[in-house]
Amino acid sequence: MRPVAVIGVGRTPFGVFPDRDLRSLAVEAGRNCLENAHLAPSQVEAFYLGNFAGPAFVGQNHLAPYVGAALGVTGVPATRIEAACASSGSAFFHAFSAVAAGLYDLVLVVGVEKMTSQPSPRVAEILASAGDLSGEIKAGATFPALFAMIARRHMHQYGTRREHLAAVAVKNHANGAKNPYAQMRKLITLEQALAGKPIAEPLTLYDCSLVSDGAAAALLAPLERASEFTDQPVRVAGVAQTSDHVALDEKDDITTFVAVKQAGQKAYRMAGVGPAEIEFAELHDCFTIAEIIALEDLGFVKPGEGGPYSAEGFTALTGPKPVNASGGLKAKGHPVGATGVAQICDVVMQIRGQAGQLQLPRHSLGLAQNLGGSGATAVVTILRAA
Amino acid sequence: MRPVAVIGVGRTPFGVFPDRDLRSLAVEAGRNCLENAHLAPSQVEAFYLGNFAGPAFVGQNHLAPYVGAALGVTGVPATRIEAACASSGSAFFHAFSAVAAGLYDLVLVVGVEKMTSQPSPRVAEILASAGDLSGEIKAGATFPALFAMIARRHMHQYGTRREHLAAVAVKNHANGAKNPYAQMRKLITLEQALAGKPIAEPLTLYDCSLVSDGAAAALLAPLERASEFTDQPVRVAGVAQTSDHVALDEKDDITTFVAVKQAGQKAYRMAGVGPAEIEFAELHDCFTIAEIIALEDLGFVKPGEGGPYSAEGFTALTGPKPVNASGGLKAKGHPVGATGVAQICDVVMQIRGQAGQLQLPRHSLGLAQNLGGSGATAVVTILRAA
Repeated sequence: MRPVAVIGVGRTPFGVFPDRDLRSLAVEAGRNCLENAHLAPSQVEAFYLGNFAGPAFVGQNHLAPYVGAALGVTGVPATRIEAACASSGSAFFHAFSAVAAGLYDLVLVVGVEKMTSQPSPRVAEILASAGDLSGEIKAGATFPALFAMIARRHMHQYGTRREHLAAVAVKNHANGAKNPYAQMRKLITLEQALAGKPIAEPLTLYDCSLVSDGAAAALLAPLERASEFTDQPVRVAGVAQTSDHVALDEKDDITTFVAVKQAGQKAYRMAGVGPAEIEFAELHDCFTIAEIIALEDLGFVKPGEGGPYSAEGFTALTGPKPVNASGGLKAKGHPVGATGVAQICDVVMQIRGQAGQLQLPRHSLGLAQNLGGSGATAVVTILRAA
Repeated sequence: MRPVAVIGVGRTPFGVFPDRDLRSLAVEAGRNCLENAHLAPSQVEAFYLGNFAGPAFVGQNHLAPYVGAALGVTGVPATRIEAACASSGSAFFHAFSAVAAGLYDLVLVVGVEKMTSQPSPRVAEILASAGDLSGEIKAGATFPALFAMIARRHMHQYGTRREHLAAVAVKNHANGAKNPYAQMRKLITLEQALAGKPIAEPLTLYDCSLVSDGAAAALLAPLERASEFTDQPVRVAGVAQTSDHVALDEKDDITTFVAVKQAGQKAYRMAGVGPAEIEFAELHDCFTIAEIIALEDLGFVKPGEGGPYSAEGFTALTGPKPVNASGGLKAKGHPVGATGVAQICDVVMQIRGQAGQLQLPRHSLGLAQNLGGSGATAVVTILRAA
């Protein structure tokens, strides 16, 4: 395994773009990324596309060559990876693995989703296809309902309170308000968050991430070649993907995601660091409770301590362990297939010192955690200044 | 790159199975495969699932951990790959690459599709999502229509005749009739094939592959460890995946698939053999014209000679270059996400001497060619006795 670097990133803003189609978003992010690394499309040796439900959202399948050819990338392996909301985190994992193993030198990863062209009930139905249709979904669950059950159990087991959940929303809104790529740039107060429209008790509107259009991209290369393309390479210090059962009822304990724990442990081992050394993180806050549990599963705090830790400001921009400086899925937006690579873009931009108003004082070692469904897929990536 | 072997294969029959769901088919093939290699699910280090359109056909997405966990495979990377009808060929390519590069030792690949629970017009619509919805499909094309245009042009350019197409159908039906795993076990005559119900001129019903349910699986390991699991390892001598434009109208010449040519050349180079040495092949006959073009693109014959070569019996079971001894997609069936791995199962069973009534006299070096859409993805795999 040779050292691997991110040599370029690219993205679109996240938002509601009625006049943009899936391909144009993916191509914009991909082109920005190629330009960022001064690379021609013909130099790309393999292409990975992360996308969850393009066929359902916009009717188009066979998306990897569809996007790849529009970017000018043909004649190479072009592969779509689907892993629910961890689709592009998984695509990044596989792209990294291929470069680390010496299969290719220059690999492009794009994540994309175009969700807002469907009406809300259909969006909920499409998202639910990441759960177990033969069980939990057939029984009436949607993802807000599944995460409401998770939140309820976490409250019961650890005394987590609605104020803890709301504190995560307030923080992520505050961060998103400063992020030019974010969909939701609106400050909210704790009172507003608590008084949000109920979605699935105890989750209110402000506990839920957004329905979004958007794309993000990253280019990988062997570290030893990185200087040909950028003077700001970012090293992929560790990355791991693991899996678990899809259905919530098949899990022993729904207050933790075993796959996240396992992926975190593997990524830490590969990077030779522990949670204490991670300076900042982008965590998969599809719901506020998910950010709290991620803090625990990744070892930033002990089980049950994620809520108070968040409410006390430890994860704020100015705290000792900033989480979701980008605004997270909550405020930046959550075009599901784009999210994993977008998190990596955010970490890379921090490490490069290009995060603008969101720039953190300590920004040399960051982590991104991408979750699929209610924990059946997890990808954890650790990046550091090269 | 270290040598890699297929150490086990498993499959379901292909057919119309109203009482079987997608997961049970995938699990059956996966279990058969694990048993074939005497492997426990807990030994699997990575899992790849090839599936084209489970979300559209049966509503279930996030399929890799969904199937993996049901097989007893959790805590490892479980990844779904979608590449239209080349989904599981691509999954096999990536699984091979990972083992060859030393990322894992024991990797399971399953391909699955459950198509027959949807009515025919919806099946056609779902299949069409592998084409370009913004162009050719919007203009009214379906896959039979696209391949009809390809056939028309091939006829115009090379003098290929309907009798040549029909000869492919007659041969594949004859082979399928002897295959216990085949969906269509019915002999047809040339007259019947020519008089088939018109689908898209010049293609009749007998020029088109089937709508099917089914699954297939393969287990990969480093060649040096193969003897721990089987006394009949089959070496993956060469494998390549390449890509091209999705839309037919973006291609310079629709009588050839550039991606197939490129993948073939790469696979031949890797295997150190040429087309003349390949003893038998499973080619992607989604339509009869596709088998004829594959013969040409893979260098078995010169451009334009595929039709006469087929009609003269060279590709028959008793011919010098048997093609689709299994019956092919035409008679064995074409559950699209399963097809790529099923072809590999067929080649492996030939090499092992386990092909029953279909056993070929020369069976030590075989090729499988898997096509996505109208040629935007191609995977070519060359297997030999270890």
